[in-house]
Amino acid sequence: MKEVTIVGAGLVGSLWAVYMSKAGYNVKIFEKRSDIRKTDIAAGKSINLALSTRGWKAFETVGIADEIRKIAIPMYGRTMHDLEGNLTYQPYGLDDQAIYSVSRGGINAKMMDIAEDHGTTQIHFNELCTDVELAKGVAYFKNLESGEETKVESDLIFAADGAFSAVRYNAMQKLDRFNYEQRYIDDGYREILLPANDDGSYKLEKNTLHIWPRGRFMLIALPNEDGSFTCTLFMPHRDNEYSFENLKAREDINDFFKNVFPDFFELMPNVAEAWADHPLSSLAIIRCYPWAHGKTVLMGDAAHATVPFYGQGMNSGFEDCSIMWELMQQHNQDWKTIFEAFQVSRKPNGDAVQNLSLDNYYVMRDYVGDPEFLLQKKFERRISELYPEKYMPLYSQVSFSHIPYAEAYEKGKEQDKFIKSIMSKYDIAALFENEGIDEIIHNYYGETVDN
Amino acid sequence: MKEVTIVGAGLVGSLWAVYMSKAGYNVKIFEKRSDIRKTDIAAGKSINLALSTRGWKAFETVGIADEIRKIAIPMYGRTMHDLEGNLTYQPYGLDDQAIYSVSRGGINAKMMDIAEDHGTTQIHFNELCTDVELAKGVAYFKNLESGEETKVESDLIFAADGAFSAVRYNAMQKLDRFNYEQRYIDDGYREILLPANDDGSYKLEKNTLHIWPRGRFMLIALPNEDGSFTCTLFMPHRDNEYSFENLKAREDINDFFKNVFPDFFELMPNVAEAWADHPLSSLAIIRCYPWAHGKTVLMGDAAHATVPFYGQGMNSGFEDCSIMWELMQQHNQDWKTIFEAFQVSRKPNGDAVQNLSLDNYYVMRDYVGDPEFLLQKKFERRISELYPEKYMPLYSQVSFSHIPYAEAYEKGKEQDKFIKSIMSKYDIAALFENEGIDEIIHNYYGETVDN
Repeated sequence: MKEVTIVGAGLVGSLWAVYMSKAGYNVKIFEKRSDIRKTDIAAGKSINLALSTRGWKAFETVGIADEIRKIAIPMYGRTMHDLEGNLTYQPYGLDDQAIYSVSRGGINAKMMDIAEDHGTTQIHFNELCTDVELAKGVAYFKNLESGEETKVESDLIFAADGAFSAVRYNAMQKLDRFNYEQRYIDDGYREILLPANDDGSYKLEKNTLHIWPRGRFMLIALPNEDGSFTCTLFMPHRDNEYSFENLKAREDINDFFKNVFPDFFELMPNVAEAWADHPLSSLAIIRCYPWAHGKTVLMGDAAHATVPFYGQGMNSGFEDCSIMWELMQQHNQDWKTIFEAFQVSRKPNGDAVQNLSLDNYYVMRDYVGDPEFLLQKKFERRISELYPEKYMPLYSQVSFSHIPYAEAYEKGKEQDKFIKSIMSKYDIAALFENEGIDEIIHNYYGETVDN
Repeated sequence: MKEVTIVGAGLVGSLWAVYMSKAGYNVKIFEKRSDIRKTDIAAGKSINLALSTRGWKAFETVGIADEIRKIAIPMYGRTMHDLEGNLTYQPYGLDDQAIYSVSRGGINAKMMDIAEDHGTTQIHFNELCTDVELAKGVAYFKNLESGEETKVESDLIFAADGAFSAVRYNAMQKLDRFNYEQRYIDDGYREILLPANDDGSYKLEKNTLHIWPRGRFMLIALPNEDGSFTCTLFMPHRDNEYSFENLKAREDINDFFKNVFPDFFELMPNVAEAWADHPLSSLAIIRCYPWAHGKTVLMGDAAHATVPFYGQGMNSGFEDCSIMWELMQQHNQDWKTIFEAFQVSRKPNGDAVQNLSLDNYYVMRDYVGDPEFLLQKKFERRISELYPEKYMPLYSQVSFSHIPYAEAYEKGKEQDKFIKSIMSKYDIAALFENEGIDEIIHNYYGETVDN
């Protein structure tokens, strides 16, 4: 039985352990943190945790989708809150299509359980990876409690140790010709927990992702199982009228919420007291290449960490597992070939997820409340209702399909250009009013156009 | 007397030590390598070592230009060698303008001598920087011979420890929101020493930089004091008809030089034997920000390493010293303000040097032998002869002026566009033939145009 070392027991590491156990490998996971199942997981960060189709597929492949479904809350669309508290609803896709709110801690704990239950997986906690001999498959760990140092030799090393991967930093980055970039965006984020009502009910509509778009900053809220919402404020760190730097005094925080998120403030008048419950965090994109060297490969955030604005950070990491699994079948466990095929096919998709995430950040921040943007979405939705075979909106390609991200990204740009050209020729809003819209769509999509 | 730690006794570190000694600081330099003055320096890498105006200014400020001038060889232009061995000469600037070939080892040794002679500088060799407390000004070193570990506290830390800066890697890169990029280009390089004739004379014209441009790769040669030339072959690592990957067998190397550099091969028929004297090296651009944190600042390659195709890597590092010195006078040794002003003013220039270097790589590789390109250079030279106040070619702005790199880069792009627009309207080659060229130039530059 081949020995496999996985560095990191996070979402991708623990899922990949399930895959490798299933394939008959002897799996050891080494995780820097202590066992989250034995500690308070409420403080965990929850952004990025909107499960969509790619994530589900990765669960289905190893038969654990039903387990996860029990702790996932469907969100069928976005609900925008304006300054007056008016709501606008925008479905994500077709009627039965949803993305699913899950708690990072909850889903992670569940997957660690499943991995361990497979019998061939052991998880070692508090183990910091201090060095890796990439080509030889030797990893070195230091136990953060005992100080004990361990040398682990294995046939394969999967580094799923996150955006600040120790494997990448300690070993990959020292390789000649390793390209690497860590790029922070101007914005940071802070979480706020909006508690349930006393009777346990939700204070906002449950099955939707709430957004308060405000131009240069925004607040979002995702439902939790217990009736609460995990809310996240995205905002520039500094150099802006509203910035985290300017939001420190309790009074300023209160004024800020009162003025810019009045309906939220009504639901949570003690927001200033809860402000310090979660830290201010930064957001970065990390690009690198190659992802594989010798017996070692990077997966998930360690290879292609992104900003959370398309909800695809976790999903793309899970898709890494699906893809690696397919390549494993295809190349009959010839790992040199698998690793090479993995990085060559997957790198453009990692880049595309990052581009999509950044683009969508601007959309969520600047356009989600914009009438022209909403009209375009409505128009695209109608096209895809009439010609589902011919038109799939970009969001659906990314969230509800398995089209490679890079392909979706290119296709999305073409579509956007085409739709905008139609919208510049017709008064689309009026055509929706007088029910002439379908005719226009038939004109464009009825016969020849395949766009 | 304030204590200053400089990490790295390379070109920038040793020059900056001279500056700080002069200003009355107590300077300790810690250098990872052993003392090059006690070892064979012939194996040193010599690319980048074309000293130009910015470098000279940095020497003049501390009165050491005359010392350096003794070991510098002027090169007044480029000499292109084509496949038939025909030569084309192209001056770099006006008649008395030159860039200067210097040996990295020679100039570095000289500056270490000068720094030590100032009396307040001590250089500690074989000292690897293992960590830095950036805000506090505490640096940790490990002696690579004795294994001894040292903790050094100082008022200021200047990290001039090169492209793979240990200070940046061990400390800066761990800061929240530190942006960092290391990007390798497809090409690598290998040095070849073309020895002097038996009588010590040069085998090629001495006072010029020789280039054998061949499209996707090129060979260059710079004169050394002893009659030899340091030659450098730039070429893709792989995935190209000619690549380092395909040049391993002695026979292949011989065939390659015979076919593509026949006049060079005649001068050095034993090139294949000399092939392994120098290693194959890689080339990268390193961008990062911020450069300063607390009591620590990055300088030179540690802050803005570039590829060597504009000969400005060393010069921009030396200019860092001039600029830091000016800011020091300006802000009366208020180092918090100096560091901030340094990084804010200097970062765009570091970026510009990198952009210029990459652009010039394409010029040297693809256009230096192109008749249209040569004609444009000739035209620009004539304009600057007639209207030196109104027209300074980009190369001169970069190599023979103190115009900030970022400004030169922008100005250069504007000029290129303007010149190309004139060239598209007239048959410039014919105008040079029939002596009508000056009239055209007077038309454009005589009166109003200030370009």
